[in-house]
Amino acid sequence: MERIPILKMGRFLLVSIQVDMDDRTAMSLQDDLTARIVKDRAKGVLIDISSLDVVDSFIGRMLANTAAMAHILDAETIVVGMQPSVAITLVELGLSLKGVRSALNVERGMELLRTIVQDDPEPDALDDQE
Amino acid sequence: MERIPILKMGRFLLVSIQVDMDDRTAMSLQDDLTARIVKDRAKGVLIDISSLDVVDSFIGRMLANTAAMAHILDAETIVVGMQPSVAITLVELGLSLKGVRSALNVERGMELLRTIVQDDPEPDALDDQE
Repeated sequence: MERIPILKMGRFLLVSIQVDMDDRTAMSLQDDLTARIVKDRAKGVLIDISSLDVVDSFIGRMLANTAAMAHILDAETIVVGMQPSVAITLVELGLSLKGVRSALNVERGMELLRTIVQDDPEPDALDDQE
Repeated sequence: MERIPILKMGRFLLVSIQVDMDDRTAMSLQDDLTARIVKDRAKGVLIDISSLDVVDSFIGRMLANTAAMAHILDAETIVVGMQPSVAITLVELGLSLKGVRSALNVERGMELLRTIVQDDPEPDALDDQE
């Protein structure tokens, strides 16, 4: 089973999904991500899906659920890099990804996160990372 | 063939290698990365290899060559997240990755890049990205 790496950038976490996830990988990402939000005291999560040509209903629900979980853990989730075909598929599947914000790319997503959490751009604690 | 996405973050580019690259993917990454350095006027490149358990001599050389190319294009390259086993393999293969800087993780790599290029942490041009 593949594990999708979670990169810590200041008080945000970045996940770049590059593989077509099977259901176990998706669930494992959800577990890893919620654990990391707590461990790293993250205030925001960026999920880059620019490599995904196809998103099925399971992955769509996983994204929505992850955002809901992150929200409960006091972190905002932004999905970035969604291809038009993926947006079309999601709506056709009846998944409007309520509660999930989007941005054009990682850079804009990061700006949006900073605006939302009113974070200073510099990470505030470099000494307690893994 | 897989394409590895290149994420723009301010004046830096971030590449997270998650798949065991075959040679064509590696060459294509090299082409894409050099093109993006020029297009985005990037000052630094972060290559995250934390997901790689194995690095063969081809990938090792690709990393070294990419760093050399980026250097000529006036961008610094930092490899982050290298696993101990990968470091052992590289040295045993006789590849010392000269000219390639390393950092523990993306966050520290980003700090190092900022120090090297004396960049301000905020991206200076959000309006001309793709």
